[in-house]
Amino acid sequence: MRTIKAGMLGIGNVGTGTYKTLQMNRKHIQDTAGVDIEIVKILNRRPHVDRGIDVDPSVYVQDVDLILNDPEIEVVIELIGGVEPATTYMAQALKNGKHVVTANKAALAENGKMLSKLAEENHVMLRFEASVGGGIPIIKPLTGPLYSNQIEEILGIVNGTTNYILTQMTDNGSDYDAVLKDAQEKGFAEADPSGDVEGHDVANKLAVLMSLVFGMDVPPSKIPTEGITAINKVDISYATQFGCKIKLIAAAKKVGNAVECDVQPTLIPVSHPLATVSNEFNAIFVTGNAVDDLMFYGKDAGPLPTGSAVVGDLIEVASAIEKNCAFDIQPLLRYDSDLEFLGEGSNQYYVRFEVEDRPGILGAISSTLGRYEIGIESMMQSSQSKQAEGLATLVFIFYETGRSVLDQALEELKSKSFVKSVESVIRVQK
Amino acid sequence: MRTIKAGMLGIGNVGTGTYKTLQMNRKHIQDTAGVDIEIVKILNRRPHVDRGIDVDPSVYVQDVDLILNDPEIEVVIELIGGVEPATTYMAQALKNGKHVVTANKAALAENGKMLSKLAEENHVMLRFEASVGGGIPIIKPLTGPLYSNQIEEILGIVNGTTNYILTQMTDNGSDYDAVLKDAQEKGFAEADPSGDVEGHDVANKLAVLMSLVFGMDVPPSKIPTEGITAINKVDISYATQFGCKIKLIAAAKKVGNAVECDVQPTLIPVSHPLATVSNEFNAIFVTGNAVDDLMFYGKDAGPLPTGSAVVGDLIEVASAIEKNCAFDIQPLLRYDSDLEFLGEGSNQYYVRFEVEDRPGILGAISSTLGRYEIGIESMMQSSQSKQAEGLATLVFIFYETGRSVLDQALEELKSKSFVKSVESVIRVQK
Repeated sequence: MRTIKAGMLGIGNVGTGTYKTLQMNRKHIQDTAGVDIEIVKILNRRPHVDRGIDVDPSVYVQDVDLILNDPEIEVVIELIGGVEPATTYMAQALKNGKHVVTANKAALAENGKMLSKLAEENHVMLRFEASVGGGIPIIKPLTGPLYSNQIEEILGIVNGTTNYILTQMTDNGSDYDAVLKDAQEKGFAEADPSGDVEGHDVANKLAVLMSLVFGMDVPPSKIPTEGITAINKVDISYATQFGCKIKLIAAAKKVGNAVECDVQPTLIPVSHPLATVSNEFNAIFVTGNAVDDLMFYGKDAGPLPTGSAVVGDLIEVASAIEKNCAFDIQPLLRYDSDLEFLGEGSNQYYVRFEVEDRPGILGAISSTLGRYEIGIESMMQSSQSKQAEGLATLVFIFYETGRSVLDQALEELKSKSFVKSVESVIRVQK
Repeated sequence: MRTIKAGMLGIGNVGTGTYKTLQMNRKHIQDTAGVDIEIVKILNRRPHVDRGIDVDPSVYVQDVDLILNDPEIEVVIELIGGVEPATTYMAQALKNGKHVVTANKAALAENGKMLSKLAEENHVMLRFEASVGGGIPIIKPLTGPLYSNQIEEILGIVNGTTNYILTQMTDNGSDYDAVLKDAQEKGFAEADPSGDVEGHDVANKLAVLMSLVFGMDVPPSKIPTEGITAINKVDISYATQFGCKIKLIAAAKKVGNAVECDVQPTLIPVSHPLATVSNEFNAIFVTGNAVDDLMFYGKDAGPLPTGSAVVGDLIEVASAIEKNCAFDIQPLLRYDSDLEFLGEGSNQYYVRFEVEDRPGILGAISSTLGRYEIGIESMMQSSQSKQAEGLATLVFIFYETGRSVLDQALEELKSKSFVKSVESVIRVQK
């Protein structure tokens, strides 16, 4: 049996999980895939940190070129993360005729096409299953079997940290700050959680998905992105009363010859399959013009699930090398669509107001909304919380409207004396 | 761009969906997969039936050999269904050096290894994504990316007809017979529904899945199989009170060096992702030793979803032909596991008794169960329904026990004067 030798850049969580998965299942991989995969060098700048894995110290190297220029290494596994130096290292590996497997959504979102062109020019493979959805096989189905479909819509819960936080806030009525601290202690959230809780990680993943299913090269910075830092117990409890859960959703939808997309907290009806995706789990809900609705569900936390996805790519590359077929049309170069990019499109919205607690207010608000052709699907009123200050809470779910129109209407309402404040605006997915 | 020519055997529901999917998405497939696929001949024994598709009549042939022996046809799509003559036709196609794509779980469950050996000997591909889970990409992830895992357990809702019937009975309190009739009118159930409602279709699919993930060659007839014909409103309503839904589940689980498996109706807690799989949808829940829990969800009804899976296989085969890589280790021949085959293993069970309505009965029953070391997790008693006859209903959920032990205990209880009847025994999945 042929042994494929790989070099790994970085040995953090995912790297450790990748190494453990290979060790734990090596015999099984030989039996099923018919190849043996051996990690012969690991770039490890902190070789004295104990990763809880059994690695011969001679495998660790400090100089990346010892991996990028090693003729016996056929596959480079990039698990450093971040745009640079990861992009430069991957580019060099590809130029040196090495196949690349990566989990790096940031580098792919920024430089995916450039890296794919390099892979094509050098007749090698570039694989990135682990970049979206942790252990979920989603990139592979989208870049092969599902070419049988024109994808019409994607809805994704693709960040385990924020989904864990929202789930705990919903199920246990905990505060955002307390849950974040707990998530950090459990290792579900990083010391600096901003990349997760502000939605940037999700925007990177949506950019990768959009390039695959719509053939669009969208810089993550262009995707309207809102995190979960403003979500609070009050809105979660109203959402529950409306029969919904609040999830951080990456959404992209084909509308005629354009694509609407955004990343933001969203009310999802409890009957929707995405509403059952809890804690550190992820799910990608895909609608195709032939297959209709599909959902891919799995874990996005812990070293092993993501390591499982990296090893899955390694197996595909190794089997292809063994067949002498380790080259292909790069998924990210399949086609350039002529679809127009739109940001946040028309949606239903949940809006919570604080208003003066006196008759006639609801009528005044709805007539203003009416002038913007914004219809009210449902409404709840509560005078409890701030009765002392003579205030009432009004919560609406509006029928579908454009975000800009909604914002204009809300600006006008804020200028009214009887409107104390607009507390929250959250998208509603029906 | 290269055009791959295919011949199709059979033009029923799936055949029509396959043809429509190819027509509808031909340009998209060319753009993404970089190949063109053309169905040049269709075996159609009833050419005068209108399938609602635009086919040049000259494409229809009556003689299968005109397809199996046509040198310009590189791929044969088998959509006749049933073990024979489908197996013979596929075998001939493979011997003639043609790649085969099929949706035929019955033929695969019976003859999968033989057909795979023929594919290997003739250096062609055999693909069968559409054989399990309708439009869900499940075979592909299991036979590649997920080789990175040793699969520990599979739980599947893999029959749209029975899931539609159970969903309607649960949501609308309808009777089995009424829902079956409605399903037949909607085209979700066949005129002779026995293959679906008695669980044989599910057993075939479980046999295919077990051969892929456990390397076991299990004849479907050896899988303990129970359909949904005995499920009634009473048990569904008790299941609801226990916080569960009743689903027809294909289950296979590794226990040490053996595999337990069966097909039977099962109580699933509403919090389990499988509980949200309704009507004609399917889902396969897979647990791997690295990736943990995964779920693949999608539609198993209507021509297009299953056609989408067939076309997905066609795209894979066509791309491989275009790369001159259309050969591989056949998934069904990957390895022969030394796992021991067990039938139904240890599970929790729901049991409903009709008993005399007088004190002391519960004590008598639980002491008998105790002698068989069967513990009671929860119990409900109701005297309403049959008070007139002096009878009460006792419903139990037992802790995990072997089925044979349970059956012995129930035999002994049936012999007691105060036990009128054992109305139902249903597996419980926690």
